[in-house]
Amino acid sequence: MAFLVKKYGGTSVGSVERIQHVAQSLKQARDAGDDVVVVVSAMSGETNRLVAMAREVMPAVVDVRELDVLLSTGEQVTIALLTMALKELGVEARSYTGAQVRILTDNSHSKARILDIDTARIMDDIKSGRVVVVAGFQGVSEEGDITTLGRGGSDTSAVALAAALKCDECQIFTDVDGVYTTDPRVEKRARRLDRITFEEMLEMASLGSKVLQIRAVEFAGKYNVPLRVLSSFKPGDGTLITYDDEENTMEQALVSGIAFTRDEAQITVTGVADRPGTAYAILGPISDLNVEVDMIIQNIGANDTTDFTFTVHRDEYTRVIDYLKSNNDTLGATTISGDDRIAKLSIVGVGMRSHAGIASRMFRSLADAGINLRLITTSEIKISVVIDEKYIELGVRALHEEFELGADEVIES
Amino acid sequence: MAFLVKKYGGTSVGSVERIQHVAQSLKQARDAGDDVVVVVSAMSGETNRLVAMAREVMPAVVDVRELDVLLSTGEQVTIALLTMALKELGVEARSYTGAQVRILTDNSHSKARILDIDTARIMDDIKSGRVVVVAGFQGVSEEGDITTLGRGGSDTSAVALAAALKCDECQIFTDVDGVYTTDPRVEKRARRLDRITFEEMLEMASLGSKVLQIRAVEFAGKYNVPLRVLSSFKPGDGTLITYDDEENTMEQALVSGIAFTRDEAQITVTGVADRPGTAYAILGPISDLNVEVDMIIQNIGANDTTDFTFTVHRDEYTRVIDYLKSNNDTLGATTISGDDRIAKLSIVGVGMRSHAGIASRMFRSLADAGINLRLITTSEIKISVVIDEKYIELGVRALHEEFELGADEVIES
Repeated sequence: MAFLVKKYGGTSVGSVERIQHVAQSLKQARDAGDDVVVVVSAMSGETNRLVAMAREVMPAVVDVRELDVLLSTGEQVTIALLTMALKELGVEARSYTGAQVRILTDNSHSKARILDIDTARIMDDIKSGRVVVVAGFQGVSEEGDITTLGRGGSDTSAVALAAALKCDECQIFTDVDGVYTTDPRVEKRARRLDRITFEEMLEMASLGSKVLQIRAVEFAGKYNVPLRVLSSFKPGDGTLITYDDEENTMEQALVSGIAFTRDEAQITVTGVADRPGTAYAILGPISDLNVEVDMIIQNIGANDTTDFTFTVHRDEYTRVIDYLKSNNDTLGATTISGDDRIAKLSIVGVGMRSHAGIASRMFRSLADAGINLRLITTSEIKISVVIDEKYIELGVRALHEEFELGADEVIES
Repeated sequence: MAFLVKKYGGTSVGSVERIQHVAQSLKQARDAGDDVVVVVSAMSGETNRLVAMAREVMPAVVDVRELDVLLSTGEQVTIALLTMALKELGVEARSYTGAQVRILTDNSHSKARILDIDTARIMDDIKSGRVVVVAGFQGVSEEGDITTLGRGGSDTSAVALAAALKCDECQIFTDVDGVYTTDPRVEKRARRLDRITFEEMLEMASLGSKVLQIRAVEFAGKYNVPLRVLSSFKPGDGTLITYDDEENTMEQALVSGIAFTRDEAQITVTGVADRPGTAYAILGPISDLNVEVDMIIQNIGANDTTDFTFTVHRDEYTRVIDYLKSNNDTLGATTISGDDRIAKLSIVGVGMRSHAGIASRMFRSLADAGINLRLITTSEIKISVVIDEKYIELGVRALHEEFELGADEVIES
């Protein structure tokens, strides 16, 4: 008997049959005595259909106020259908749009931030034994305008509701059954984690982004809402994301997971003057180009100069390197070079904080596999290296074995 | 320079191209200096699509609260797209759902009645020079639940807004260019009426229902909102529906239009006791069967008995006659008979009030055409006869000529 928020994404409610399947699962939760608030996205494909119509009507600039009015109909359809499906099963239920709950946001249309949630109507329904079905992704501004929360907004709605309602857990149902030690497509021994900390989840972004929107994880961490990732299609306990507590630290593995990403490119600028403002001189204009920079490494070069390396998304590689070369007059670098066939490989784990020697185990393991390291960066709970892209699978498997993350049995693919 | 409500139905906004066409017309009205509130329906086909999904989820009984949440998304899509299309043309505009305007209704989901309209936000926008785009067919209850107004709801929304905003005119755009003296498919000389009174429009229901929902006409009459029916596809002044005033009575035709309907059936019960309660004994149970009765005629029979005739929709004929026959024990009728191949033919006109002899002109004209009259009923501004269905076109043309309703030129079909 718990008070839960359960969030189902577009794929989980992508057809009438799937909505009926979700209603069945919710009935089971009610029958088990749980109080449930459900948050749903638009049926998969619906948002694209609406956006396509908006583009046709308004080919140039899109009016964000009206786009929000349009897109918010997507979740409104889902809440009505899911509530009907629940009632068909004899489960008392009631639907609310974001405005009806009064999920108050600022008025930044298409990327609004939640300011406050009125819990009165929902709590009345919960006390009356109803399942409450809320439209994710949307809210209402002080002026009464419909707003949407932007990418991953439904996850954020779910976490914000769980925080406001003081729920025991916020469960995010998706098409994977939890967070894995690494990508099972690369390492068949990858194991589902029962538990992971918010910090680890954030550091595993490259794995996690397929599962949870980072913004929702941050939000859950900030308000200390236990977050659980589960599959909408197969049973199981999923992965629980919480704060690290004493009890769990005892049995904490040194390394929780191996993250990696292949879509990066590396750019190195050598022989620039080692003086204040150099980093800004290089990275400021790149930020102005609207390019996001991931890793940044600076090392001491020869003769009072410094060598500077950073990574960007592979799609931006040519644009950035061309820009730097054409502006080298002001920069004064000896060389500007790069490589767009690199990959980033990371180990993540809160256990690192209290255990020395993890880094050297990682480096030795990769050396034994014959993999050369090009760049290294470290944080409190994460060590990342950049290697040749072609060695990425080899590197993932070597580290997965080194830190004993494997399942006893190979996962069926 | 007028303050207008303009209502566009589902066909008029049935595609992105048509929405853009409506936006162009609205731009012209703005350029001419008119202040405009637009009321729109769901794009044609959208409501059926949503209802089909609801049926799939909830095959047995439909939950009307949730059905309203679902269906109201239809108009919400249209208001957003039309507002975008206006902005694309450089016309300042803003959209509102029924709840956002605060079109307050009772909580009879799927057939709610409008109680009050808050005009504050709309008037602010109008004063700022914006076109205001309002979702028809929907409102919000005191409790904050989304409601819909039922059949013809968007026409009602438009009229109610025009009344609340004290607009000069409520213009209903549709796929016909006005109200005709009779159906042009039957009489090629049928002529578009420039003007007609609310009462005549109500009595011409069988013609008018293809053009305007009766409920909206009643509403417009009650609040004295001048109502104009126009085509969304071709230019013209349409037909203005107002109260009869002195000025117009002067030039008022005796008969404004010829209405007819083919989908009726006649049932006659003879030889029932002529005593209080007889009409109820026959019609009470029929009303309990949920069958609507149109004409009711009672005449004196032989030996303290009475003969009773009424008409029902043709689809209900067998059910009603079977019911009466199986219950004749209590009724005690001599005969129960009927005919489902009849038609009703009516002349309508406020001029009848002040002119005698109209009825005899009608009857003589039909007699000259060799048409036998089975039933006759009269009201203040309408005379109806029931005839054999096969004579209906002949009867329409005879009366159209008798009362000189024809256009000089034959209308192209």
